[in-house]
Amino acid sequence: VSDPTGVDPKHALFSDPAVDDCLSPRASVQAMLDVEAAIAEAEAEIGIIPDAAAAAIRSAADARLVDLDMLAGETAVDGNPVIPLVRHLTRAVARNNSSAAGYVHWGATSQDVLDTAMVLQLRASVPLVLSRLQDAARSAAGHARRHIETVMPGRTLLAQATPVTFGLKAAGWLDAIGRDRIALAAALDEVLVLQFGGASGTMAALGDAGPRVADRLGARLGLRVPDLPWHSQRDRLVRFACALGTSCGVCGKIARDISLLAQTEVGEAFELRPTGGGSSAMPHKRNQVSASIALAAATRAPGLVATMLSAMTQEHERGIGGWHAEWTTMPELVIVSAGAARAIGEALEHLVVDEERMRANLGLTRGFVLAEAVTMLLAERIGRADAYQRVERATRLAADQRASLAEALISDPTVTAHLTREEIEERLTPEAYLGAARLFVERALARWAPLSAS
Amino acid sequence: VSDPTGVDPKHALFSDPAVDDCLSPRASVQAMLDVEAAIAEAEAEIGIIPDAAAAAIRSAADARLVDLDMLAGETAVDGNPVIPLVRHLTRAVARNNSSAAGYVHWGATSQDVLDTAMVLQLRASVPLVLSRLQDAARSAAGHARRHIETVMPGRTLLAQATPVTFGLKAAGWLDAIGRDRIALAAALDEVLVLQFGGASGTMAALGDAGPRVADRLGARLGLRVPDLPWHSQRDRLVRFACALGTSCGVCGKIARDISLLAQTEVGEAFELRPTGGGSSAMPHKRNQVSASIALAAATRAPGLVATMLSAMTQEHERGIGGWHAEWTTMPELVIVSAGAARAIGEALEHLVVDEERMRANLGLTRGFVLAEAVTMLLAERIGRADAYQRVERATRLAADQRASLAEALISDPTVTAHLTREEIEERLTPEAYLGAARLFVERALARWAPLSAS
Amino acid sequence: VSDPTGVDPKHALFSDPAVDDCLSPRASVQAMLDVEAAIAEAEAEIGIIPDAAAAAIRSAADARLVDLDMLAGETAVDGNPVIPLVRHLTRAVARNNSSAAGYVHWGATSQDVLDTAMVLQLRASVPLVLSRLQDAARSAAGHARRHIETVMPGRTLLAQATPVTFGLKAAGWLDAIGRDRIALAAALDEVLVLQFGGASGTMAALGDAGPRVADRLGARLGLRVPDLPWHSQRDRLVRFACALGTSCGVCGKIARDISLLAQTEVGEAFELRPTGGGSSAMPHKRNQVSASIALAAATRAPGLVATMLSAMTQEHERGIGGWHAEWTTMPELVIVSAGAARAIGEALEHLVVDEERMRANLGLTRGFVLAEAVTMLLAERIGRADAYQRVERATRLAADQRASLAEALISDPTVTAHLTREEIEERLTPEAYLGAARLFVERALARWAPLSAS
Amino acid sequence: VSDPTGVDPKHALFSDPAVDDCLSPRASVQAMLDVEAAIAEAEAEIGIIPDAAAAAIRSAADARLVDLDMLAGETAVDGNPVIPLVRHLTRAVARNNSSAAGYVHWGATSQDVLDTAMVLQLRASVPLVLSRLQDAARSAAGHARRHIETVMPGRTLLAQATPVTFGLKAAGWLDAIGRDRIALAAALDEVLVLQFGGASGTMAALGDAGPRVADRLGARLGLRVPDLPWHSQRDRLVRFACALGTSCGVCGKIARDISLLAQTEVGEAFELRPTGGGSSAMPHKRNQVSASIALAAATRAPGLVATMLSAMTQEHERGIGGWHAEWTTMPELVIVSAGAARAIGEALEHLVVDEERMRANLGLTRGFVLAEAVTMLLAERIGRADAYQRVERATRLAADQRASLAEALISDPTVTAHLTREEIEERLTPEAYLGAARLFVERALARWAPLSAS
Repeated sequence: VSDPTGVDPKHALFSDPAVDDCLSPRASVQAMLDVEAAIAEAEAEIGIIPDAAAAAIRSAADARLVDLDMLAGETAVDGNPVIPLVRHLTRAVARNNSSAAGYVHWGATSQDVLDTAMVLQLRASVPLVLSRLQDAARSAAGHARRHIETVMPGRTLLAQATPVTFGLKAAGWLDAIGRDRIALAAALDEVLVLQFGGASGTMAALGDAGPRVADRLGARLGLRVPDLPWHSQRDRLVRFACALGTSCGVCGKIARDISLLAQTEVGEAFELRPTGGGSSAMPHKRNQVSASIALAAATRAPGLVATMLSAMTQEHERGIGGWHAEWTTMPELVIVSAGAARAIGEALEHLVVDEERMRANLGLTRGFVLAEAVTMLLAERIGRADAYQRVERATRLAADQRASLAEALISDPTVTAHLTREEIEERLTPEAYLGAARLFVERALARWAPLSAS
Repeated sequence: VSDPTGVDPKHALFSDPAVDDCLSPRASVQAMLDVEAAIAEAEAEIGIIPDAAAAAIRSAADARLVDLDMLAGETAVDGNPVIPLVRHLTRAVARNNSSAAGYVHWGATSQDVLDTAMVLQLRASVPLVLSRLQDAARSAAGHARRHIETVMPGRTLLAQATPVTFGLKAAGWLDAIGRDRIALAAALDEVLVLQFGGASGTMAALGDAGPRVADRLGARLGLRVPDLPWHSQRDRLVRFACALGTSCGVCGKIARDISLLAQTEVGEAFELRPTGGGSSAMPHKRNQVSASIALAAATRAPGLVATMLSAMTQEHERGIGGWHAEWTTMPELVIVSAGAARAIGEALEHLVVDEERMRANLGLTRGFVLAEAVTMLLAERIGRADAYQRVERATRLAADQRASLAEALISDPTVTAHLTREEIEERLTPEAYLGAARLFVERALARWAPLSAS
Repeated sequence: VSDPTGVDPKHALFSDPAVDDCLSPRASVQAMLDVEAAIAEAEAEIGIIPDAAAAAIRSAADARLVDLDMLAGETAVDGNPVIPLVRHLTRAVARNNSSAAGYVHWGATSQDVLDTAMVLQLRASVPLVLSRLQDAARSAAGHARRHIETVMPGRTLLAQATPVTFGLKAAGWLDAIGRDRIALAAALDEVLVLQFGGASGTMAALGDAGPRVADRLGARLGLRVPDLPWHSQRDRLVRFACALGTSCGVCGKIARDISLLAQTEVGEAFELRPTGGGSSAMPHKRNQVSASIALAAATRAPGLVATMLSAMTQEHERGIGGWHAEWTTMPELVIVSAGAARAIGEALEHLVVDEERMRANLGLTRGFVLAEAVTMLLAERIGRADAYQRVERATRLAADQRASLAEALISDPTVTAHLTREEIEERLTPEAYLGAARLFVERALARWAPLSAS
Repeated sequence: VSDPTGVDPKHALFSDPAVDDCLSPRASVQAMLDVEAAIAEAEAEIGIIPDAAAAAIRSAADARLVDLDMLAGETAVDGNPVIPLVRHLTRAVARNNSSAAGYVHWGATSQDVLDTAMVLQLRASVPLVLSRLQDAARSAAGHARRHIETVMPGRTLLAQATPVTFGLKAAGWLDAIGRDRIALAAALDEVLVLQFGGASGTMAALGDAGPRVADRLGARLGLRVPDLPWHSQRDRLVRFACALGTSCGVCGKIARDISLLAQTEVGEAFELRPTGGGSSAMPHKRNQVSASIALAAATRAPGLVATMLSAMTQEHERGIGGWHAEWTTMPELVIVSAGAARAIGEALEHLVVDEERMRANLGLTRGFVLAEAVTMLLAERIGRADAYQRVERATRLAADQRASLAEALISDPTVTAHLTREEIEERLTPEAYLGAARLFVERALARWAPLSAS
């Protein structure tokens, strides 16, 4: 027999218990019942249905009374979960107050309940994502501040380029998280909109009282009342999905960097969790669990966002298929976003930075990483193109002879005609070639100071 | 506290109980335990571990003994579910046979267990999809046969074009389902491959016995043994994901057609389920539930397939993030595919065809739908360009005067100089303008006769 | 030999000449050259390079002098177009001023040029999209105003539900376009940010003058100077891509509605372009060309947005592959968005509305479409559940006997015990069951009055 | 004025001149004209149109005579390129043979021409992809053979795991390319199917001669004639798109590996192209251009495949929007696939392998990479769990004291009670812990011997 009980461990990777609580099957049903109860109360307030009916509906609107497996089975038959849930609620109300039962779902349509419940679940769950992002920002700011002078190789296309600081790298993460948090919070605010329109979005079943019911309902649920229902205009929801997807990408980029820094051969930074992260086969392995999670989220999110975008072309007053595709996609997107935010928060909190290794890696190329530095100086004397050519020649020579770039340059009379040995050596000092790195870190710390305050 | 118990009704839309059983959390854990037990048995068979140890492992490899919530929590810490599951299994074995406990997971790596368990779950679940598709093919063939002469409007870009038969439309569905079923079965066959390679895919932990263990393990699990492990070469799995995604599209196309035929203003065919499909607000509504489900699946699948494709660029001997992204995506794809196949099977089984309405709709344009027919005849006499122009003129005239195309044509002396009234009227008979429709239906029925045999 | 000259007609569907001009190969090269020239001028302004060098670079920075085919060939070898373009520019400068040649691309990196040029091209092209959307909003507002009382069937899951007005449908379109335009304009504003950081984003090649050069460069190009370079932090660009993708969805939803309204069997509204839209085979066909284009754009955009999201996990200071994937995706997204906006603008401008047909279609169900109306009235007397049941029974009866819903209701003594014939008939009048439709239209018109003012 | 002339350098990254020739605007138009000419000739063969007409049409069917810009402009108005192209062709024929002009496009519909032309372009272009893949397979086989004994670190989740050989890594690439080539060739074979059905897919315009025309047409074009037209059944095309997308993923995985091996800190293998790959800022950089291209292709392909899947739900006998979305997506997918295949072919051809560095990197962990080896040996004596614990403890100790794993193990009396120093040291030799690596390489080389034969 079917035994769906429990959480699939494969899904647990993204799991954040606080978020899961908001999105659990039981929570989904409770959110729908909350909407049904609030509709009844709003209508009672205006005098459309009796107060006693509203009270009876409220008191029966308890997800713990619902047989979720039965509801699931009926959903597949009825085509949406509200139809069987209204039947259940009507029966539950009738048991205590038979006349009240007739007022269940009064003037509403399934989509009013399903969409508004989804919005309520977003309101409950997404602040946890924002809070995880704030944790991550705070940790990133800490790294940026502490490592404002920690020199390390900059890398482009995965090869060492010119020196940067780890503070600058962390400032880049902080800056992205900061923007992300603002964008996600703004998108959340925009999506917290009541859906209430009845069968075709005219509220006709409520005569001329519809807009007043909507106002009361919005007030009760704490949701903005839109100018008009949005049954088949899904742009707000899609913008929110995009914000979640982008958030996964922001976290994924940080995870990519960490996973690369943590490589055995790089070893400049890695997550050292208090527990976990071992390998089932290899006792010495310390897996980058958080990076795995955030990268997995960043791999999953684009497809989920694409689904939300594809689902936008909904037919007339209610879509067939497009609307239904959102039901599982939207919560999944919250779950992976929450998982990514939590993972990055933890990774940054537990990130161990190995400054010595950073400096050692800078030396790996025997000065090549500062080729541009000396090129620029030489260019001031002999022009950029010639300078580029001389330095390129020196790097080739140094590579062939396993010599340092300094030695190769000093062996070239064309170079030494224009640069002294001291100039060359000074230029090949990483600390002397950091440009505006410190300024950039300071700017990011100042910009996001509110976020990173404990 | 967290209460994830039960199925979210919003997910239930795609739910197929038989498929869910294969993919439930408990089933996922059992599949992984089955792999662990089979590894032990294969190794015992070759003499690498004691027979008694294998027996003890087999007897403890029971998912009913596992606390799924605890496992889920540990998974998020350890980074994959196999690590905590091996711990659990080791403890469970140790309770009965402490020396056997040391042989749990001998020479294996997490990915061996997770990937092979996924393959086992695909083998269990996907034949149900194939069987649903066979049901759908059988129903489609029935419609094709019964309606080989049922004339209806062909429609291009949603406007009536020239006549077709409903048999031809159903034959098109049958043909696509037939191809789809073959492609999906072939892809399933290709993906039923053992994953066994140990830490880095060399089976080094088993000395030189690795390949023999793999052979025995493959034989026990009924899986093909590949030339070499495929830890980070995911192409087989992705090809299978593509086949599932394409299957959703095939079902979605049929659902699109049905949803359009069922429109109030078209009314040519619609699903009439014995139960369900009502509206929570409108007593007269008969919602096309199956079409909703299949269209939702076709909207979800592309994003899921894209995720599988994106996840392919896995690093070295085991991917970080890419591999993890597959874990939830792959089963989700099976679920939506199964939902789509079942929905289309049911829709075609319960499809009511209104032949009268089809004929009536053909008459809506007062002959325009046969404009091409008369154009072709006229073209034989005065050339295609002139004929096209005369008929276009007649359609405009008929539209302005709300006359029939026949009347408009007969009123044009240029036309009547070349065509008799009888020729015009005969040409404007839909039955006379069906071309090879019958032949095409017969071909499809012959091609897929094995599928549609009861 | 290769002959890529000209535009592929298959691509022309989305083509908007004004947008194409901003995104043409020549325009892409000119944008990069504009950035190179502005860098030189900014550096000259600060005294880093000679004024004469900057002048020479500016005067050589002319895309008409560049052999595009050769540049394309070299790009595939060098890995990005800036490397060969800098070579070309250096040669071109050298022809007139050999000492200036050494100052080309001074202190910059390829990504500075490519990213900033992309931003410049967005700034040039996207206002055209916004302007097309404004046209569309204006037309939608006109329809909403004119048809505030035009009754038509509301449709959910493609079946007639309760009456709406065409004004309400158009108000929904207007409202979505209005939000879309604001969101897209805001996203455009956010993305207009200079990229300038040199090799690893520290501007080290410019010593301590980097930030001043960036300020001057931003001022010259009219772009905001960010706190720090964003080489591998792509969130701004991705948010912009999301806004474009959402815009395609908004247009696609309108196109979906129009394509459905224009069906031969519905015929309530259709685009009647002054020219075009014919069929190559059928003289009577009027294809919904604009709807085809907008729906195609809405089908393409999700995949393009997903690519932008997937590309976010860029490595360290410059991504390998992710960055490169954006180059073709971003302009393609602008092109489809522009095509969608233009198509919807034209469709709404040329939309012919058939009010008679709307009313006729409302009558198709002999009153079923007002089943909810009479249910609600009856519910006030006998409770919602009983009322729902009686009306459902009446609709079945009416369907069996091809009678009207009114007749079926009047034949039921349980109904007539509570409702008079006059009440029943009044309730079955569509105009009497429009709820807040008028209010919603007025709200949307008021909200978006600035947009719809000519 | 608009000046789209030339290739955008940003698009050139994926450019393969031979492929571009097949997909250029001119080639697209020629393919459509080839179909028109072949239709005329097939019809003449059967006697439906005069031989002279067919000859006149063939002789006018020359893309060099078509004004591509004008055609593009008209396409956007007419809604597809065939309509204006037929007008052009008709005029061109009429100039030489006015009576023949009437036979242009006889009995065909736009989709027949567009779809069949697309198939012809696939047939022309995709064998080049297959050939590039064969080159890549040959190079991969060469590496596998040469490096069958080259020891290097295996890496899971980006951390060193246990040793592998470079031969094994290359054999994994070879194996994936081999499967990919077979799958792509099979998919190409499946998609080479004629589209010919006329307005609604019945061939009614040809009376009862349709199937004979189709047979002749298929023979002339060398395409299989399907049982029935496939206007709105797009599964074959989508399966082909999936094969291209998977091919990009296969190439992307190899590119990922190369990009990681080429990192400055790893340096085990890198592409050394004869030319190109420099940096505009840094003279010492050797960018992994091919890896960038293949990774960009692997990032782009999933979104393009998703679009093809999303476009499947095409309405009735011809889709509105879905069909149109394919037109640009399909060629783009061929282009990125060709780019990926070529890039990987070149990367593997020019791949320099640094065996010394591989061995040096193996030593970086002072034996940790062989922790599993010694664990397995110890496990045989004291059980797996205890062994795992002892070795984990030793690795921690060694890490703290910067000692080798051997030293740490030897300092543990529990270990030395069961293992001799010689056993420990022998076990910590990478060459002794390669398991079945050689066998796997030999199997892959044998399996794909036909591919890798020069």
